[in-house]
Amino acid sequence: MNTTNLTLADPDTPFAALDVHKSLRNIERLQTRADQLGVTLRPHVKTSKSLDVAALLHHGSPCPVTVSTLAEAEAFAEGGYTDITYAVGIDPHKLPRVIALLRRGVRLRILLDSVEQASFVAEASRQAELPIPAQIEIDCDGHRGGLKPDAPAVPEIGRILHGAGCLDGVLTHAGESYFAFTSDEQRLAAKNERDTAVAAAERLRAAGLPVATVSVGSTPTAHAAEDLTGVTELRAGNYVFFDLVMAGLGVCTVEDLALSVVVTVIGHRPEYGWIITDGGWMAMSRDRGTAAQAQDQGYGLVAGLDGHLIPDLVMTAASQEHGTLTTRDGAPLPELPVGTRLRILPNHACATAAQHRGYHVIDSAQSPIDGAQAIRTFWPRIAGW
Amino acid sequence: MNTTNLTLADPDTPFAALDVHKSLRNIERLQTRADQLGVTLRPHVKTSKSLDVAALLHHGSPCPVTVSTLAEAEAFAEGGYTDITYAVGIDPHKLPRVIALLRRGVRLRILLDSVEQASFVAEASRQAELPIPAQIEIDCDGHRGGLKPDAPAVPEIGRILHGAGCLDGVLTHAGESYFAFTSDEQRLAAKNERDTAVAAAERLRAAGLPVATVSVGSTPTAHAAEDLTGVTELRAGNYVFFDLVMAGLGVCTVEDLALSVVVTVIGHRPEYGWIITDGGWMAMSRDRGTAAQAQDQGYGLVAGLDGHLIPDLVMTAASQEHGTLTTRDGAPLPELPVGTRLRILPNHACATAAQHRGYHVIDSAQSPIDGAQAIRTFWPRIAGW
Repeated sequence: MNTTNLTLADPDTPFAALDVHKSLRNIERLQTRADQLGVTLRPHVKTSKSLDVAALLHHGSPCPVTVSTLAEAEAFAEGGYTDITYAVGIDPHKLPRVIALLRRGVRLRILLDSVEQASFVAEASRQAELPIPAQIEIDCDGHRGGLKPDAPAVPEIGRILHGAGCLDGVLTHAGESYFAFTSDEQRLAAKNERDTAVAAAERLRAAGLPVATVSVGSTPTAHAAEDLTGVTELRAGNYVFFDLVMAGLGVCTVEDLALSVVVTVIGHRPEYGWIITDGGWMAMSRDRGTAAQAQDQGYGLVAGLDGHLIPDLVMTAASQEHGTLTTRDGAPLPELPVGTRLRILPNHACATAAQHRGYHVIDSAQSPIDGAQAIRTFWPRIAGW
Repeated sequence: MNTTNLTLADPDTPFAALDVHKSLRNIERLQTRADQLGVTLRPHVKTSKSLDVAALLHHGSPCPVTVSTLAEAEAFAEGGYTDITYAVGIDPHKLPRVIALLRRGVRLRILLDSVEQASFVAEASRQAELPIPAQIEIDCDGHRGGLKPDAPAVPEIGRILHGAGCLDGVLTHAGESYFAFTSDEQRLAAKNERDTAVAAAERLRAAGLPVATVSVGSTPTAHAAEDLTGVTELRAGNYVFFDLVMAGLGVCTVEDLALSVVVTVIGHRPEYGWIITDGGWMAMSRDRGTAAQAQDQGYGLVAGLDGHLIPDLVMTAASQEHGTLTTRDGAPLPELPVGTRLRILPNHACATAAQHRGYHVIDSAQSPIDGAQAIRTFWPRIAGW
């Protein structure tokens, strides 16, 4: 890793800080689980959107990944990744870019859940004389897209894809597990996710169709799954950074959060109990994911530059470039003069990271310099679609 | 303006489309008001963050502008703008960049609301042998930062700034006008904003301090103000694009919205009444500004590619790269096959625009080609801080 002469006290605020020590610990934890469960881990890189962060996943060498945009797929292909799943239902208009990636040797799998899409994909494969590997999206919990495993369209799509050499398997995502507030509920969500995916695969196999991939995953279910028999791969993305939503679900602790936003105190409104910072929603995003949880964390919890939480202090309001900090339960406002730097721990790492061009990288396993971690390097993000 | 061979049917979705015809109409409307009120208009460029959009403001030549970040100030300075107000309370750590802009001939005004900040600025001005023009932030409605006009700190700060040649004037922003739901309330908010700023200026003048600038503004109050006697300039930003929050306040109509996000239908869940698109919160932002209004518009209203609203269709849920459209009041789901392109009108233009690297520019005064507006050019945004 490169080194700079800067610490968290130096760049103008706001900026995103990534603690590589915590990220590596989070990565190791889920990799160990996947190894124990006997499945391939296919991390979702939509959270970090960074080749440098992804290099932490597998000791610097490319591993299977999941992406949320073709821009990510193209950047990862450029970075030497050859095993990529694009896990958003395919828009037929995007097939030329998919085919271009396949032609350069990337095994890019796409996702779909309709006869319409399957027909487009089969036709495009025939025209290109190149089968586009496709997975059928299965709905396990009514969260978003996908087909129920017993839907008549499942074998119909399977046959259309198989006829063009495109059928790769099935994929499901337990999106509702973000609302599974106990570990029992999370285990049940993981079991349901696995059972649903395997049922869909069995249904296709019973129709004489080959199913290579049975893909499941979400950060909560990946950490809760106890048995993934019949599943070939596990997906999760958020765990590389974690966030307050995940801490609220008990999937991690607040100490595991690898991403924070460094901000500066720029004013005080003691009559209202407010401390004003230069970190608003442009730096944090508008995500209020913990609003649906037992403990609403506003726009984020507040730590000192050393990373230690300041008790009872919460970012409770945001405008574009202003954040408002208040205390809980009438606790007195801490003394934080103008110019004081703070770190805000976000609700939703994917959304907060997306507000930044990249990460100032720190390593909390190293001793700070004058109370501020050294900045080791800057890791850029992939933007756009 | 350049021309491309593309229409809104061509670039991969999601992407931001800016209707230059509507923007120009919105710009002309407020410029006419400012002229009638006899004040300088100092548009806030934080909404578009684009030199190209700013060129619409004043027939292509630089005009006074307001910015929300020093990155904007630097980009606008590079673009020939020499009269810039940075309207976020100053972090002393950022003063070197302020001084660098002043040295290159930009009259950059900064904002502050504490004796602490004033002392930093006065000291930095003395050391640089260059007075930093500063405005005192005045709070007119308890929205965010600033001092009440009768706060003892107002003349104290005034004296510190004046002693270093830095005192430029006062600035206030009626942020609570976003919650002024009737035109009467908006007129009152505008009167209060004006009265408060002028009272603060008079207070400084009574203390023997010179006040050159008396700056007020927000998009709702700028459109509601009837008398700005004593005010020297009016700020507003959102009006260049407008959005559903402003339409909900009655400041504009939905037809005035210049910004939309083009998305594609990628799936259907008829059993839930959902149409799924490839435009999630990454494309729209997490902003739910209309949730506080009488008519909650979800994540946005839905129009066809031709710009005409599809009645009763609303984007009601978002994940990172998925949007869910539903109908209101049990209206039947329209027939929108996979691959159909739609335009989502956003709650909050500042937040939605921030999710994109720039704008695909269309002109709705021109006839569409096969039902889709021609894309005239691409205008990039300024990013970061």
